[in-house]
Amino acid sequence: LTGEFAFIQALRALASDPAARGLSDDCAVLPFGGEVLVLTHDAIVAGVHFPPDADPADVAWRLVATNISDLAAKGAEPVGVLLAYQLAGGEERFLQGLAEALAEYGAPLLGGDTVGLPAGAAQTLGLTAIGRATCAPVPGRDGARAGDALYITGPVGAAMMGYEALCRGEADPAMTQAYRRPRALLAQGRVLAPVVHAMMDVSDGLLLDAARMARASGVSFAIDRAAVPIAAPEARRDDALRWGDDYQLLFALPDGIAPPVQAFCIGRAVAAGAAPILLDGAALDEEAGLGYRH
Amino acid sequence: LTGEFAFIQALRALASDPAARGLSDDCAVLPFGGEVLVLTHDAIVAGVHFPPDADPADVAWRLVATNISDLAAKGAEPVGVLLAYQLAGGEERFLQGLAEALAEYGAPLLGGDTVGLPAGAAQTLGLTAIGRATCAPVPGRDGARAGDALYITGPVGAAMMGYEALCRGEADPAMTQAYRRPRALLAQGRVLAPVVHAMMDVSDGLLLDAARMARASGVSFAIDRAAVPIAAPEARRDDALRWGDDYQLLFALPDGIAPPVQAFCIGRAVAAGAAPILLDGAALDEEAGLGYRH
Repeated sequence: LTGEFAFIQALRALASDPAARGLSDDCAVLPFGGEVLVLTHDAIVAGVHFPPDADPADVAWRLVATNISDLAAKGAEPVGVLLAYQLAGGEERFLQGLAEALAEYGAPLLGGDTVGLPAGAAQTLGLTAIGRATCAPVPGRDGARAGDALYITGPVGAAMMGYEALCRGEADPAMTQAYRRPRALLAQGRVLAPVVHAMMDVSDGLLLDAARMARASGVSFAIDRAAVPIAAPEARRDDALRWGDDYQLLFALPDGIAPPVQAFCIGRAVAAGAAPILLDGAALDEEAGLGYRH
Repeated sequence: LTGEFAFIQALRALASDPAARGLSDDCAVLPFGGEVLVLTHDAIVAGVHFPPDADPADVAWRLVATNISDLAAKGAEPVGVLLAYQLAGGEERFLQGLAEALAEYGAPLLGGDTVGLPAGAAQTLGLTAIGRATCAPVPGRDGARAGDALYITGPVGAAMMGYEALCRGEADPAMTQAYRRPRALLAQGRVLAPVVHAMMDVSDGLLLDAARMARASGVSFAIDRAAVPIAAPEARRDDALRWGDDYQLLFALPDGIAPPVQAFCIGRAVAAGAAPILLDGAALDEEAGLGYRH
């Protein structure tokens, strides 16, 4: 038993409760007290998910925004968060970014845990976001059907360009903003949730995340490469389709329904083929390079 | 701003929601739908909260039991958990202990996150436990009043003896069980919650945790040293009162009410003095050695 994939496969045996959604969705979805609770926990590690020298205010923002984005993909509204913090210096800046992000998303800090960081260790931070569903059923990744249109709420590649600017030492904060301060699309998710067949946020790259939705739904997605909006030079289109961190919402809509928010049709669900993605007709699977940055 | 205490003080400014209980309680307590949600997240770090060479099955058990113990202190019943796991080898054993603990406490795995561990880093694990309150109001640490009797559900020191046996290389699992496999007292917590003025689990040491309850409640506790049940040689009594990890429930009960579960009266709440604890009449505060193991 080695590697993340094998471990998660083994965890699924312990996650038989329907609320766990087979550990294949962005969130757990749990009836509670006559309403529906939406729960997610994402962890980030220095040197893996953020550069060790990143501004802790940006790290805090990212930690909050990525978890709130999972709620957005369920159409849920935030109720609050629990913070798992590891002391590593830079706490003033971390608190500053945390306060900004929690205020932005209206999510109060409800609790959590603060622990020490042994010498030489990598700071590991976690956040549990608690949300309230605003529609029933709560959309998952698994509901796309052949014939559905596939949409994305906005361009991909902005975070990539921001990251590269940051690596170059770009001083203008506006040039790196998309990477440092990703936005969770709560309002769009809430409007979309009642009408989509499937929805998720694009965190690991459009092609990879679309492949996950395709596999969960038992379809393939035929994607029109040129139809994908990008926020990068045209020469970087293939990279932009494989980079994550933009947190756009990707959703499958029944044919003939207009999306209730601004969105771009990038393809269509078709009967499942051997590969989850057909990019301009070319079969792409994990081995053929859907992309994965970390 | 340095150190855990200063950081938590600063976090309190972001935790003004009443559900956060000022970050001074074992759990967040949140009305949701027509019921009350009880939420906690504890993290543990290799080399800080468990030996790096510990059996991962015991680590998994501890991670679950310590969080479920926080629910027990609220009289809550478990609804499920989210796991924040960091891959570090030993996953088969971890899964074994996780399965055992989740089955023991009837808490399904609902979700979470699995991330990598950079070379040389210390494994950091987190668990969010989600519970349902079974009585209203949900007891806190802050309700003890002068005149209340102070009780503990069982002896302290068993985990200390188990830890020391483990360090000696003791082969008999029964000798190290109390440290390796602490038990969360869910049934006792549930029966106690409706009648106590204040309750918490003893995780960091009886004297230190009693001092926290005293400060939160605005009282002092006069504790009768000889009345504290210990599971250690009499010569180790002072150590046993300062060691944690036994997860007994500590509670304040109105004078004249008999506890509805087996418990030992170890003292009484008195008007707040300069020190939170009077041990056989001697004032003890954090500086005077309440004890803290990590």
